[in-house]
Amino acid sequence: MTKKHLLLSTLLLFMAGWSTAYGEDGSQLWLRFNSVNTTAQVTGVKGTAMTELQTYWQGGPVVLKRQKGRARDGYTIKSQGGKTVIAAASDAGLLYGAYHLLRLQQTGEQCERLDISEVPFYDLRILNHWDNPNGTVERGFAGKSIFLNPTPERLKMYARANASVGINGTVLNNVNAKPEALSTASLEKTKAIADQLRPYGIRVYLSINFASPIKVGGLETADPLDKTVVGWWKKKVDEIYRLIPDFGGFLVKANSEGEPGPQDFGRTHADGANMLAGVLKPHKGIVMWRAFVYAPQSPDRANQASLEFMPLDGQFADNVIIQIKNGPVDFQPREPYSPLFTAMQKTQMMVEFQLTQEYLGAANHLVYLAPMWQEFFSFVKPGSLKAMAGVANIGDDTNWCGHHFAQANWYAFGRQAWNPALKPEQIADEWLKQTFSRHGKDNGQETAAANSQFSIFNSQLVKVMMDSREAAVNYMMPLGLHHIFAGTHHYGPEPWYSPKGVRADWTPPYYHRADSVGMGFDRTLTGSANVKQYPEALCRLYNDVNTCPENLLTWFHHVPWDHRMKSGRTFWDELCHKYDEGVHETRRFLAVWDAMQPVVDAERFAAVQRKLRIQVRDAEWWRDACLLYFQTFSHRPIPQDVEHPVHNLDEMMKFHIPIGMYENPESGYNK
Amino acid sequence: MTKKHLLLSTLLLFMAGWSTAYGEDGSQLWLRFNSVNTTAQVTGVKGTAMTELQTYWQGGPVVLKRQKGRARDGYTIKSQGGKTVIAAASDAGLLYGAYHLLRLQQTGEQCERLDISEVPFYDLRILNHWDNPNGTVERGFAGKSIFLNPTPERLKMYARANASVGINGTVLNNVNAKPEALSTASLEKTKAIADQLRPYGIRVYLSINFASPIKVGGLETADPLDKTVVGWWKKKVDEIYRLIPDFGGFLVKANSEGEPGPQDFGRTHADGANMLAGVLKPHKGIVMWRAFVYAPQSPDRANQASLEFMPLDGQFADNVIIQIKNGPVDFQPREPYSPLFTAMQKTQMMVEFQLTQEYLGAANHLVYLAPMWQEFFSFVKPGSLKAMAGVANIGDDTNWCGHHFAQANWYAFGRQAWNPALKPEQIADEWLKQTFSRHGKDNGQETAAANSQFSIFNSQLVKVMMDSREAAVNYMMPLGLHHIFAGTHHYGPEPWYSPKGVRADWTPPYYHRADSVGMGFDRTLTGSANVKQYPEALCRLYNDVNTCPENLLTWFHHVPWDHRMKSGRTFWDELCHKYDEGVHETRRFLAVWDAMQPVVDAERFAAVQRKLRIQVRDAEWWRDACLLYFQTFSHRPIPQDVEHPVHNLDEMMKFHIPIGMYENPESGYNK
Repeated sequence: MTKKHLLLSTLLLFMAGWSTAYGEDGSQLWLRFNSVNTTAQVTGVKGTAMTELQTYWQGGPVVLKRQKGRARDGYTIKSQGGKTVIAAASDAGLLYGAYHLLRLQQTGEQCERLDISEVPFYDLRILNHWDNPNGTVERGFAGKSIFLNPTPERLKMYARANASVGINGTVLNNVNAKPEALSTASLEKTKAIADQLRPYGIRVYLSINFASPIKVGGLETADPLDKTVVGWWKKKVDEIYRLIPDFGGFLVKANSEGEPGPQDFGRTHADGANMLAGVLKPHKGIVMWRAFVYAPQSPDRANQASLEFMPLDGQFADNVIIQIKNGPVDFQPREPYSPLFTAMQKTQMMVEFQLTQEYLGAANHLVYLAPMWQEFFSFVKPGSLKAMAGVANIGDDTNWCGHHFAQANWYAFGRQAWNPALKPEQIADEWLKQTFSRHGKDNGQETAAANSQFSIFNSQLVKVMMDSREAAVNYMMPLGLHHIFAGTHHYGPEPWYSPKGVRADWTPPYYHRADSVGMGFDRTLTGSANVKQYPEALCRLYNDVNTCPENLLTWFHHVPWDHRMKSGRTFWDELCHKYDEGVHETRRFLAVWDAMQPVVDAERFAAVQRKLRIQVRDAEWWRDACLLYFQTFSHRPIPQDVEHPVHNLDEMMKFHIPIGMYENPESGYNK
Repeated sequence: MTKKHLLLSTLLLFMAGWSTAYGEDGSQLWLRFNSVNTTAQVTGVKGTAMTELQTYWQGGPVVLKRQKGRARDGYTIKSQGGKTVIAAASDAGLLYGAYHLLRLQQTGEQCERLDISEVPFYDLRILNHWDNPNGTVERGFAGKSIFLNPTPERLKMYARANASVGINGTVLNNVNAKPEALSTASLEKTKAIADQLRPYGIRVYLSINFASPIKVGGLETADPLDKTVVGWWKKKVDEIYRLIPDFGGFLVKANSEGEPGPQDFGRTHADGANMLAGVLKPHKGIVMWRAFVYAPQSPDRANQASLEFMPLDGQFADNVIIQIKNGPVDFQPREPYSPLFTAMQKTQMMVEFQLTQEYLGAANHLVYLAPMWQEFFSFVKPGSLKAMAGVANIGDDTNWCGHHFAQANWYAFGRQAWNPALKPEQIADEWLKQTFSRHGKDNGQETAAANSQFSIFNSQLVKVMMDSREAAVNYMMPLGLHHIFAGTHHYGPEPWYSPKGVRADWTPPYYHRADSVGMGFDRTLTGSANVKQYPEALCRLYNDVNTCPENLLTWFHHVPWDHRMKSGRTFWDELCHKYDEGVHETRRFLAVWDAMQPVVDAERFAAVQRKLRIQVRDAEWWRDACLLYFQTFSHRPIPQDVEHPVHNLDEMMKFHIPIGMYENPESGYNK
């Protein structure tokens, strides 16, 4: 019996008789406060901080104090003479302090001898919602847009959840922006939302369609250097600020995937961004201009953003931030960092992470993303960036994110944007404690036994969460593979997808390039030379198949099937092992979760179990589809110590999940 | 690298460049002779033996010699002065000798210094076809009846295959017999078949409907003691023998599952059987009277046959044989032997095995049955029986049996009926050599290398075959579980199947009796007392939960969930492990088969691979359905070192395969 099994057996023995009668639907996220036992005596500055503490704080007296000279959102928490004093320069700072105190309470930390001083690393910690006016959410897997017909209660919960982790901005609409986002009717709705978020320190932003002057304004051009166009934007921005005095600014996807942009009028990204920045500047608004661009005819999509943006380095106004996806392609399970981050020297940049699991099993797979973001920050210094944006995974599902564990990605995003140095395991641990433990519940019947149970639960689940991203990489796209997803959605495997007439860089063979010799995209100096966009040392490392990190091997190299890996295996055998490892990891996650039944409420236990079962079956589907398909090129047997495919390639190739990019599939392969 | 892996790697290395271009469809069964290189000089007795040798023998001169005084079907084969002499008392004996010689040739044995003497253990080695007049085959999973519109070529192949393994009788129609089997039109068709089988030493038999005198003859009764009835049977039997002078006799299912029988007229099984025996006796025909009876109201179906038949022991005529299924219930993956076999002292008995896999995955699962029959013979002395019957797994599918490996059960049945002492692994080995090896093919390009390859193939596949039945027991019904199949077919699991109005002994809960205490059918002395039907020593052994063999535990006991097993595990944990073991075994079979790709023709490789993949997925389905369902009684967790279910119980309970008892499902669970 391994140590793990011993732990679990102990756990089960311990709690065999323990009832878990009450249900939970996840709607309270990690804010599962007990308002019944409140003992709060809160004095000082009135506002949201005071309200939250008065409703949920169960400790001694708290004083809220305004203190000038501090950083805008920073705060201190000090135990002084039997009281807890929270001091900050702003209402937002006080609110963040209040949530900090409540977090200590909910995670069972001591709240007696506090001496805390916090300042957020980034001033701008912002969610990007890809919500459409019709209520659909692009790559949203948790129902419809929460902004379509929001109830005040739901919007308040959204605001509290964001504020509790320090998120202070939100882009309400899809980067593939409909022009009507700027219509007066739509702006009135935006104002209503902004009014409800303001007490929680959250500013609203809008994605804009660059052709709005034509489509909304009726002008004949949207040329950013055209005075009528600039005039139109000025008027529109004035209108916005009359409605929303603290409006944050614009997010712009221009000349990308068919969206209009300055290049349509012979102008550059800088021309476009700077024009908007100029109009926003008097109001202290900003422009977040996305670098997610790639021409259909580009010989290497991964090169494209640098090719377009490097010549503009230093040309952007000081209230423009270039928003760059973490990787050079598109939110794959694993990518190297986008080389723009280290190449651009004179431009303000921010990173765009994707919380919604477009390429990571949608709302069916448990994949904790903080380790992926930490990996990014091991290459890109947090200090080189201005801000952090996260594409939200939020919808109108009762539990907000479809998968209960997807809530952890929302939580972790906020916490890492506040402090990128926070360890993912610490974030997971505090999220688990607040989300699943019963501290603050049970009317004070908290016991040493219960604490011990939850500490086992937490250590087990932290490990599952921490291992989950690497598992997903393994069962989907190990060793640097990328973008071999189904053509019509990004849920399942379709490495063979390559219909006539579809642009090459929207098909998997463009990326995996499997042939009888080997597999992978040659991005070396003798290939697409993408390696050259990285700093010299990394370029050398990546350029040599023998020094390139194996987890990026086929990203940078066309690797021969018999290439010898560090494990001693051939590349083909290693590929088989990695896929199989992924499957076995998901089975382990399921087994760990099953053992937690006594500690988790029945409702969430069953919901997560069901999702984990889907994940195991999907992992097998991924493994079988990819190995059997790649085997048609490698002509090598699947090693004996690897589990052999149980699905048939011909049947998998005929199988299609009838979903679009707005839906979470019920489950994966079912033939 | 384990020894096994090393072997397989060597194998793969060895054959990497080896082409397997030609296809195989299984239609030649194990008779894959090469008629091109024939060198045969065959002299002596003319007949089928000579024809077969002249067509396929590749060795030196053969002499066929009639020799009186030998047992009817026996033969000798001796090397004498550069010739091989086959001697026998009958044409059938010569034919069996000829096939023996061809088997030596095909399996690569030496054929130079032969001194063989063979006599079959049983005189009657008989197939039971459950074929209906409309061409369907009850529990047939390989297409329609081969007797519906048989081509001469196909019927000849059927005859050759049977003769090659010593099968000398065949019941052409279903034991649930339509009365029209005895109509003159139908008998004419039977005669035509008999004429074609006769040259191969095969007699035909018919299943009869006991009410035939009413339904065919127009009489008012079928009372076996009624003189008009006896007269009708006499006339009918005379008619049969005019058409088919060597007609074998009748197989009768009476007063069982709704079929008519002597009890309908207040008579006993003996009355019915003896009347028919009397009518057949002058023609040397026999009656095979089935003991498969069980009343709906029986408190233990397993007791019923003994209760009905023991009082009749000694009352049956000398040309009646009581045909008893190997187990007391119904061809389950594992049953104890039917206690009738040891209880009846003054009655001729024969065993009925089931070759068609009604309860063993139909034509989708690889389950080699010889080890199961060997297990039976370890309890019931072969010498205590008169004959062996096997319910055929043959249909008009190109490969005869649906699954290529199901052919092995047909083959093994014949070989064991000839000699029950033959080891299942030896039978598997010789079947594999004849069925898959390329001896006699390739126009003599047989090499030492090829032989070495096939010896690896054989040893690997013999092991798979030998392990396959225990694997099936494990993933379907380990530890004595039985009859928890789907209600409308017997393919998948439905341990919960229990609709209102269905007789109890046709529903799984009647058999598994799971409750909060434990699971299993209490057949001890304080339960249904079924143990008492066994000899004293076995009765004692089975009656005590601590001495009862664990592979029959829930057959005889209602076992508490926490009962301590020999492994040290609780019964519940052991159950989980057994189910999981079954799944892992099927995965191993698949991996072994996959490694054989270089040695097997592409057509059969793909067909078997596809079936094995189904088998793995079905095994998971079985494991998940049974464990999750039984868990609703045990309320115990699935152990951590067991793979956890990936399907959901509620979904599995809603799932139905739309097949009846005449079809092989395309595959199992697919939600």
